[in-house]
Amino acid sequence: MYKIVLMRHGESTWNKENRFTGWTDVDLTEQGVAEAVAAGQLLKKEGYSFDIAYTSVLKRANKTLNGVLEQLDQLWIPVVHHWRLNERHYGSLQGLNKAETAAKFGDDQVLVWRRSYDIPPPALEEGDERLTLNDPRYADMKPGEFPRTECLKDTVARFVPYWLETIAPVVKSGKRVIIAAHGNSLRALIKYLDNVADDEIVGLNIPTAQPLVYELDADLKPIKHYYLGDADAIAAAMAAVANQGKAKA
Amino acid sequence: MYKIVLMRHGESTWNKENRFTGWTDVDLTEQGVAEAVAAGQLLKKEGYSFDIAYTSVLKRANKTLNGVLEQLDQLWIPVVHHWRLNERHYGSLQGLNKAETAAKFGDDQVLVWRRSYDIPPPALEEGDERLTLNDPRYADMKPGEFPRTECLKDTVARFVPYWLETIAPVVKSGKRVIIAAHGNSLRALIKYLDNVADDEIVGLNIPTAQPLVYELDADLKPIKHYYLGDADAIAAAMAAVANQGKAKA
Repeated sequence: MYKIVLMRHGESTWNKENRFTGWTDVDLTEQGVAEAVAAGQLLKKEGYSFDIAYTSVLKRANKTLNGVLEQLDQLWIPVVHHWRLNERHYGSLQGLNKAETAAKFGDDQVLVWRRSYDIPPPALEEGDERLTLNDPRYADMKPGEFPRTECLKDTVARFVPYWLETIAPVVKSGKRVIIAAHGNSLRALIKYLDNVADDEIVGLNIPTAQPLVYELDADLKPIKHYYLGDADAIAAAMAAVANQGKAKA
Repeated sequence: MYKIVLMRHGESTWNKENRFTGWTDVDLTEQGVAEAVAAGQLLKKEGYSFDIAYTSVLKRANKTLNGVLEQLDQLWIPVVHHWRLNERHYGSLQGLNKAETAAKFGDDQVLVWRRSYDIPPPALEEGDERLTLNDPRYADMKPGEFPRTECLKDTVARFVPYWLETIAPVVKSGKRVIIAAHGNSLRALIKYLDNVADDEIVGLNIPTAQPLVYELDADLKPIKHYYLGDADAIAAAMAAVANQGKAKA
């Protein structure tokens, strides 16, 4: 039996401002940093340690991971950064305040873009300054790989192969793996692992910086999963995520 | 021509308490964290960025590196951790206050242990709790590799092969390398690069968290080297290091 830990990054500045973030490289808030520390302390208290970590190339995930590893006294373990673990790319919605977008397009359209499985928001156009093709962290991407927008199906399509080809063999080798990523890249993995239906996965809310443990069998099929933290706190954090994107007065 | 950046970690709690640290995994002080941030800001201002980083498995170096990379917005680059970049192992002096040790053994003996090239301090004995053979960060070491004490010559002998076999080829491939390590592992590298005499290298003082740039030719022979920071600040930091280990009233 194997055990992996999944973690969404702590609160980011744009979570707080309720903006569509996607591949925008925003920082953690002070609370986000504190959440990472608390998650690390919780993992330590529960006796967890890791042999290797996987994370995105976005600082909110990287800093969350470092906050956790510091508490575990494991800043020395190998950390693999890859864009395939990045958040879902939100196309031309990136940077817009979610409540403003909702006020402009209506709650329903925003919910479609946020929560439908296969309908992406409008794509970024060539020349849009948000299309950061020259960012060195993406220098290894092949032509055509940089997304202009994504629906969750697209995120699944680019993350699950990385799971299968890179992370899963490492899990099977017996190494204890932690994955510090984003709401939608983690949804993508969970959809694959638990074979969640398209219309169900979009309703799955993953709270920030709460260690989510998956116990896997010899074929990496889930036996069970659970959050490590206090159940009430988890429920409140999930509700907070679910309420994002609703129009505010 | 190639350019590499060497950095000693920021002030640690035992730098501040003037204790022999070696492989003891002490944390940075608040000042040490601030030094790392300042070094990152300086590197950013001077236009530096990196493709890969090498560091030890000790948190004071890891955290210094992370502080630098965060300022550079480069937390996403690959970081390789290896015990061969660790500080010189101080044997049975580890944990002792330097001034107390000086008062007990005399300034001269302490200077011999700190600054002679090939005379190690007394070795840790089997069973000493400071002999952390079971620490998972050292699990990949081969039998006999874990030092019980080291003179600088020993540190040279275990770090230079790693430079030659692992880091140097990466530098030659054109990748921009930063090495975040320790006073004596950096002395070891500098001795090799600049072919410094045994009795001279022990007098070379490397200030904490000051980016030291080495420009190397096609064969990785140094063309020149320089600290990036303010010259007066560097001189003061070097003098502070040189004064460590003298008996205090």
